[in-house]
Amino acid sequence: MKEIQSIIDKAISNGQKILSELDSKAVLTAYGIPFAREKLVESLVEARKAAGDIGYPVVMKVSSEQVAHKTELGLIETGIKDENELEITFQRFFQRAKELKGLVLVQEMVRGERELVMGMTRKARFGPCVMFGLGGIFTEALDDVAFRVAPLEEHDALAMMDEIKGRKILDTFRGMVPVDREQLGACLLGLGKIGLEHPAIHEIDINPIIVRDGQPIAVDALVVLGVPGKKPSSLPPSTGYLKKFFEPESVVVIGASKSPHKAGNDVILNIMANGYEGKLYLVNPRGGEILGHKVYTSIQELPDGIDLGIVILPAAATPKTIRECAAKGITALVLAAGGFAEVDEQGKSLQEETVQVIRETGVRVLGPNTSGHISTPHKFTSSFFPLGKIRRGNISYIAQTGNFATHTMRYIMSGENFGVARVAGLGNKLDIEESEILEYYAGDPETRAIFIYLESFKYPGRFLEIAKGVTKYKPVILFKGGVTAEGAKAAVAHTAAIASDDRVIDAVLRQAGIVRIHRYSHLFLAAKAVSSMPLPKGNRVSFLAPSGAMLVSLTDFCTGQLKLRVPALEETSRRRLQDLSPDFIRMRNPVDIWATALAKGMETAYYEGTKIVLSDPNIDAAVLVLMLADETGVPPLDFIINLAREYPEKPIYVTFSGQKKHMDSARDFLEPRGVPTFPLIEEPFEVLDILYRCRSMMENR
Amino acid sequence: MKEIQSIIDKAISNGQKILSELDSKAVLTAYGIPFAREKLVESLVEARKAAGDIGYPVVMKVSSEQVAHKTELGLIETGIKDENELEITFQRFFQRAKELKGLVLVQEMVRGERELVMGMTRKARFGPCVMFGLGGIFTEALDDVAFRVAPLEEHDALAMMDEIKGRKILDTFRGMVPVDREQLGACLLGLGKIGLEHPAIHEIDINPIIVRDGQPIAVDALVVLGVPGKKPSSLPPSTGYLKKFFEPESVVVIGASKSPHKAGNDVILNIMANGYEGKLYLVNPRGGEILGHKVYTSIQELPDGIDLGIVILPAAATPKTIRECAAKGITALVLAAGGFAEVDEQGKSLQEETVQVIRETGVRVLGPNTSGHISTPHKFTSSFFPLGKIRRGNISYIAQTGNFATHTMRYIMSGENFGVARVAGLGNKLDIEESEILEYYAGDPETRAIFIYLESFKYPGRFLEIAKGVTKYKPVILFKGGVTAEGAKAAVAHTAAIASDDRVIDAVLRQAGIVRIHRYSHLFLAAKAVSSMPLPKGNRVSFLAPSGAMLVSLTDFCTGQLKLRVPALEETSRRRLQDLSPDFIRMRNPVDIWATALAKGMETAYYEGTKIVLSDPNIDAAVLVLMLADETGVPPLDFIINLAREYPEKPIYVTFSGQKKHMDSARDFLEPRGVPTFPLIEEPFEVLDILYRCRSMMENR
Repeated sequence: MKEIQSIIDKAISNGQKILSELDSKAVLTAYGIPFAREKLVESLVEARKAAGDIGYPVVMKVSSEQVAHKTELGLIETGIKDENELEITFQRFFQRAKELKGLVLVQEMVRGERELVMGMTRKARFGPCVMFGLGGIFTEALDDVAFRVAPLEEHDALAMMDEIKGRKILDTFRGMVPVDREQLGACLLGLGKIGLEHPAIHEIDINPIIVRDGQPIAVDALVVLGVPGKKPSSLPPSTGYLKKFFEPESVVVIGASKSPHKAGNDVILNIMANGYEGKLYLVNPRGGEILGHKVYTSIQELPDGIDLGIVILPAAATPKTIRECAAKGITALVLAAGGFAEVDEQGKSLQEETVQVIRETGVRVLGPNTSGHISTPHKFTSSFFPLGKIRRGNISYIAQTGNFATHTMRYIMSGENFGVARVAGLGNKLDIEESEILEYYAGDPETRAIFIYLESFKYPGRFLEIAKGVTKYKPVILFKGGVTAEGAKAAVAHTAAIASDDRVIDAVLRQAGIVRIHRYSHLFLAAKAVSSMPLPKGNRVSFLAPSGAMLVSLTDFCTGQLKLRVPALEETSRRRLQDLSPDFIRMRNPVDIWATALAKGMETAYYEGTKIVLSDPNIDAAVLVLMLADETGVPPLDFIINLAREYPEKPIYVTFSGQKKHMDSARDFLEPRGVPTFPLIEEPFEVLDILYRCRSMMENR
Repeated sequence: MKEIQSIIDKAISNGQKILSELDSKAVLTAYGIPFAREKLVESLVEARKAAGDIGYPVVMKVSSEQVAHKTELGLIETGIKDENELEITFQRFFQRAKELKGLVLVQEMVRGERELVMGMTRKARFGPCVMFGLGGIFTEALDDVAFRVAPLEEHDALAMMDEIKGRKILDTFRGMVPVDREQLGACLLGLGKIGLEHPAIHEIDINPIIVRDGQPIAVDALVVLGVPGKKPSSLPPSTGYLKKFFEPESVVVIGASKSPHKAGNDVILNIMANGYEGKLYLVNPRGGEILGHKVYTSIQELPDGIDLGIVILPAAATPKTIRECAAKGITALVLAAGGFAEVDEQGKSLQEETVQVIRETGVRVLGPNTSGHISTPHKFTSSFFPLGKIRRGNISYIAQTGNFATHTMRYIMSGENFGVARVAGLGNKLDIEESEILEYYAGDPETRAIFIYLESFKYPGRFLEIAKGVTKYKPVILFKGGVTAEGAKAAVAHTAAIASDDRVIDAVLRQAGIVRIHRYSHLFLAAKAVSSMPLPKGNRVSFLAPSGAMLVSLTDFCTGQLKLRVPALEETSRRRLQDLSPDFIRMRNPVDIWATALAKGMETAYYEGTKIVLSDPNIDAAVLVLMLADETGVPPLDFIINLAREYPEKPIYVTFSGQKKHMDSARDFLEPRGVPTFPLIEEPFEVLDILYRCRSMMENR
């Protein structure tokens, strides 16, 4: 690889923006990209010899560092059939090559109907990103491409091939041989490696890469040079200190307040309401007592070595407060104040100062501008929004919004029946950021599933590394706020132009095994389900509904809008269902349960029907659409609790048709007993789809 | 066109399955499809002359009625550059042509980077369907095609071009001239015409049609012959008689029952509960009195000319009952009984007999196997599911499911606050079908918007014709149950192979101006909104929310998942918002209202903020995300009712964050006063998207 480096160094010292075609190919060939045979020719005699060796028809090109896109300037002639044509083209190109200080190449003519494209580009903070897709004019028109960030693993490369819409053409297609996926994958891995090993290479386009007899062969390439950026951080953090945040044995509220409805008062009420069992200290220059607790007049006065400080002071007091805390051995702080870089220039310089102080003192900080964090197993919260006692559960959230530990928690507490383990509001994340919290949750026995709302990634590389590990055994579900479709503006290569931030984030999440959702509401709906039910082992759903229209429309929804299947049951199961039902209904999956319910009562019909489908090896999950109305009778619902107990490995969800008041009381009965319910009939299926994706992330990587 | 017919006739009498290439082109040329220049040649001398006239390079082909897809058999040679190559190819092809009883053609070589495809196929009941899309190998791999059923209008053809994902390549693309859309459109209209005028032509493929200097030029075509099917019915129905169903002055229940909870009893209770003001007769062989009404012992006994009969008898009694009713001048019947073709062979023959009796007597029938219909302006229903008094409103439903006039109505009555005008359960639609009801609703002053659940179209042509008219002034929203992705199995042309039922239905709905939805729940959510609010005039939404995360994630949702825009406000509006707000928030659309709410109170903040955005000419609709919690205060909500009054042309929807009980009471206050609310924050935007599409259907056709 020394030669490669010297090619690059030489080009840079020549002031080149792009590598010559020969150099580009030398670099790419060294990383395993196969190219069409070609020869540099300096005279007609050489050209004739080259063409003779390669065999007609051939391609002739002018290659010059001054030209990034040859086709548009007419510097390629394909299909040269004989010496006659060769001579005419050579004369013309030889002249052009001189003008452009370039060279003339004779190349093998590669024929194949399938044209692909691949490339590499660098994105700020994400590092080298590899692209793959349909080539030719369709690259731009259809935008049918997939990305991954380097380093790629083999399964990433294979997943990219399955991700493009035109993936059909990679298989046996119109009598063509299937593309050698291993070979194609090796090329993609090679591009990732180039990106990691040669920071001066900024963009690469290989377009087209033609498929001949199943083998990919590149016929043109462009390598763009650039100034190496900072290497993205990928230092693994040590999360030991987060214990001080989530399991503090002593806490001090700095800026405690006597006045009701002030943040400095509400935070104390919250801590008390949750039954915090550690030591609670308060600081306020006025001293005295607040809510039965002694108030210290200064930080200096406090005993040494308090685990955690919650600072509820104006932004300007931040740097000084951090120093004072550090001096007292308080090394973990939650900074509630807003008014930093998110507001104005003054706030920005205050923020910079704060970063400096954090670095100097080594104090670890959550925030500023955070609404706090929650840790129910430790009966603790630093939230200053009046929350009261927070329901304990096994769901943990990471949220880059003040919304979460405040009114969204309020909604979860009042509108849903599941509880949370940990919640962290990241605020401006001057110090502690998402990947550290993620690592803490990964090892947290109280956390069964992790939900994330994020607007930006502070260290994408570190995040990816940690997420790759945790998603193998815990579901991680992420809503990305602030999607932008904008591509890079100054891009030379097409790869760079279509690598929008959102596309790359999508790639990172797929690589990380994180399931991306596109509705804020799914942050609760999916949490509710995973909180008490197992993940579905596959995407094969059965459901029981009281109406043919529902059977039809929900099947369409599962298979058309989602990636679920509604498969046939084994014949023995089908027959058992048929035995349950009046004859005039032909029983199958999905299950038309209404006639059975009329004949045998709702309870028996749904109980027996669900048992049959859950016993079937083809079924991974069941949804009960209960019809509840005065006239038809509302059965006791214990049987559903029993079903959940009898089939602990298959999730059971409930939704409704009929009268609102019965739906509400069914929810109030079922949810506290661990059976999730959903007001709209599509919702349980949307959630199953999300959780099935989580599950397949665990298996397929 | 006589010649065209004789070409087809001759081919059929020869027993051909496809037209020869020359004949295909003759037919297509007559309908305006431009082809590459070509000449039939029978000797080398003729071939030389043809190539000289056309100009090298040329294409040579063998054309034979025995071969549908030439390329796969190597019967095309492109890029023939000189007489030498011409001769070699001719010798080879001349021999092959003899073997295949075909001809040799010399054709102009059309070069262009853009390859398109178009075609025609026939679908049962839908008639000729026209296809357009990306050509070459991508037709199959990407399936990027659009369909319309004949006859096409010009705007249909243009819409097809905008519908494909690769539409970019039709415009100025990589320095190429934009495609002549008018010319392309004319070709598509031509294909539709061929389909209508020549029933023996079954399938057409034109692939590729190459774009040269912006002009489409077809270079190959395949015309497949078939046995003409039945012409689909397109007789416009007369809906005058539906008055008897929806506005009957007298009604008889045949099969009235004394026993509570029997259908024959519940239907009487329903009629009474709704305050029906016409005359109500009952028939039961036992006579006597039911619920205070005299019971006739037979149909014969009834007075003459009762408007409507509701028949609640076993299926087997149907034919006889229809005859007896006809004899008594009862010409409109609702048949409740199930047990016809939907059940078994016996039911099927009963159904055939019933069709026969309907035809003989001229009686008009709704059902059988219908759960009935509803007409609140007439205080009437034929539903036998216990419904009680049904809330009157301006939404009308057509439903091909028993689900609708039963438990779905029950849900609407108990879980929503809007009312219905008419509901028709179609049942097995032996007689009355969706298009007749649609026509009645079209002219019904009580119906503001029409929602349809349909599993099949009885007469697609008639439905399309009527829908095209009504969607110009009323929104029509349809959920299609039973989507199937299956293509036609015995297709020869690619066009036919990819024309799945669902694709064609999608085409029909677009042509009809009907908005298709993919969630059953949207049948209520959208109804609620259109019931009391105007349609949005465009897709430009403003919303006010109490959290940055919501602003961000809902903007993403609007622009990423939906077709809504969240545009900038005029600078004057922006400044007015800024004046309202504390300085540290930079106000814009969407509106971050929380700081203002803290400073001025929720009521003032939301009222003034919404006024500003609704006054802005760039905004078509506003959504208020209200934050409701004990601690933050729940304001009186009259101001929202006032806003709706002040801006009668712009819809206002409400959704929530915070505490469940306050959300519920806000809903209970706002909805009966005409302001729709939605429990999940994404829902109002989904509904705006649906209704915006309805509105643009009205304008763009």
